[in-house]
Amino acid sequence: MNVEEIKSRLDIEIKSYDFGKNPVELYEPIHYLMALSGKRMRPLLTILGYSLFKEDWQSILKPAIAVEVFHNFTLMHDDIMDNAPLRRGKPTVHEKWNNNIAILSGDVMLVKAYDLLLFANPSYLPPIIRSFNQCAAEVCEGQQFDMNFETRSEVSEDEYLEMIRLKTAVLLGFALELGGMLAGADQESLALLRDFGQKIGIGFQLKDDYLDVYGDAVKFGKQVGGDIIANKKTYLLIEALVQAKGKLKEELEYWISLTEFDKDEKVKAVTHIYNQLDIPQLCKQKINQYFMEGFEDLEKVKVSESKKAFLKKFTEQIIHREK
Amino acid sequence: MNVEEIKSRLDIEIKSYDFGKNPVELYEPIHYLMALSGKRMRPLLTILGYSLFKEDWQSILKPAIAVEVFHNFTLMHDDIMDNAPLRRGKPTVHEKWNNNIAILSGDVMLVKAYDLLLFANPSYLPPIIRSFNQCAAEVCEGQQFDMNFETRSEVSEDEYLEMIRLKTAVLLGFALELGGMLAGADQESLALLRDFGQKIGIGFQLKDDYLDVYGDAVKFGKQVGGDIIANKKTYLLIEALVQAKGKLKEELEYWISLTEFDKDEKVKAVTHIYNQLDIPQLCKQKINQYFMEGFEDLEKVKVSESKKAFLKKFTEQIIHREK
Repeated sequence: MNVEEIKSRLDIEIKSYDFGKNPVELYEPIHYLMALSGKRMRPLLTILGYSLFKEDWQSILKPAIAVEVFHNFTLMHDDIMDNAPLRRGKPTVHEKWNNNIAILSGDVMLVKAYDLLLFANPSYLPPIIRSFNQCAAEVCEGQQFDMNFETRSEVSEDEYLEMIRLKTAVLLGFALELGGMLAGADQESLALLRDFGQKIGIGFQLKDDYLDVYGDAVKFGKQVGGDIIANKKTYLLIEALVQAKGKLKEELEYWISLTEFDKDEKVKAVTHIYNQLDIPQLCKQKINQYFMEGFEDLEKVKVSESKKAFLKKFTEQIIHREK
Repeated sequence: MNVEEIKSRLDIEIKSYDFGKNPVELYEPIHYLMALSGKRMRPLLTILGYSLFKEDWQSILKPAIAVEVFHNFTLMHDDIMDNAPLRRGKPTVHEKWNNNIAILSGDVMLVKAYDLLLFANPSYLPPIIRSFNQCAAEVCEGQQFDMNFETRSEVSEDEYLEMIRLKTAVLLGFALELGGMLAGADQESLALLRDFGQKIGIGFQLKDDYLDVYGDAVKFGKQVGGDIIANKKTYLLIEALVQAKGKLKEELEYWISLTEFDKDEKVKAVTHIYNQLDIPQLCKQKINQYFMEGFEDLEKVKVSESKKAFLKKFTEQIIHREK
């Protein structure tokens, strides 16, 4: 068992799964989006969570894919709301087709996620659906908070951390918990896996904020400073607004207030302010704190160290990513 | 037990159910739409279906509401796609709030429908979710076909009947089947209830087409002839285009081709063409055929006539409605 092998089995399973055919306007966008191969991080976490307790991970590929389908459903609808032209370098569904098709095709996708969960052992299904429902509602709540924050003048650190927990982290938590549930794990282990996933998820999103400014443009694969250009209320900006005093605060607010500016100049200036305030160190500390807390949860799961090795290794790759 | 009593219990249950609170942008639209009290036809069918087999219908109010929540989810999203300003005489969610909120709030609503199904006996849950998923996907397929038909030049009678089966009828079929499933009914009864509901549902939609032209404007509660004005491809228009020959066909195509016209004049002229072609009789025959076939299915369900009395009476009210 290795992560590449699992990912390749997941890709095959996704490619061969029959989401539906007719009308084509409804099902083609699903196949299109699912084929824009991502990291498959969420179903991988499900399988690694399952593998803590059982060995036959090949038997849970379909319910594992449910979390990937759900994730892609949120991308399809979020991209409409965010008016995003591209997803993984390709036209978004609402751009390639239209908004109505992206709404309706997304709706069917959410239903198909539930379809895939039905491949679970029927006796495990009620708690699985219950947990999934909670996760799904929370992800929507997170997206709504994220949209609300765009037009709010002030967002506190706590509000921001809760927003990214809902929007990003609960799904990683559910992915791991699902793996445990499919293996029939005990309640204590399930709670630990969920918390582990959520902590890793928050750290993961904070790392995203960090890399947007401090990542290597080539490795990160997108323009560094995009969040600064758009005044996006990331952890870095929220903290900088709290920490900055006097002239530095004026300077930061000046750059935020500009409607016309040289992009490179703004990125350089705001990054310089962040540096003077030690924001990158603060952010890295916060990331490490969440990752450490997450690993403490994982430590408490009562299975042997050798069983945890794969999950740990995979999570460390997520943590130490530079893109 | 009478229908008014059940409806009033359903209204109370809907009003007191906690769909969620925070963020308000996400949950207020759900409460708003659910409070625009409709006929509650679908959960009523669930309860009447259940009551064929068991007496304690009060115990299944929550899973019965799931079909109403699902129905309202489809309305919230359909209204965006159709750009509809009003729903039951009030501003639609996307008008009152905005498109993004209507998309996301609708998404949560679909999740909440699954939440309500979780109140079913856990051992019945897997087949319930399976049936619901199929129904939900088919309703989306029906909506997509409906949108496709708007821009298609020709739609056959069979295509139209299949579209309304998917868009409208399968949910009535599922509502009844759900009642049976919650009561632990046998497979044969479940299939009969589902078919009964679908046939009634197709008849119901055809009656809607009929009433749009031949209904009493006061009783029907909306302008008669709206479908004619909009060139909506209803059963009446599709049949008229098939039946009309020579001068009558030319005349019909003339009215369809006009981009500017006097509304009353067009409604009067097209109605006159329908009358000359015996379309209203043809439509009424078709409606009766579906209702009859539906009742034949109901006859075959192996429960006493007295148990069926309420469901029959309620369905007859739906059939003989003039609005």
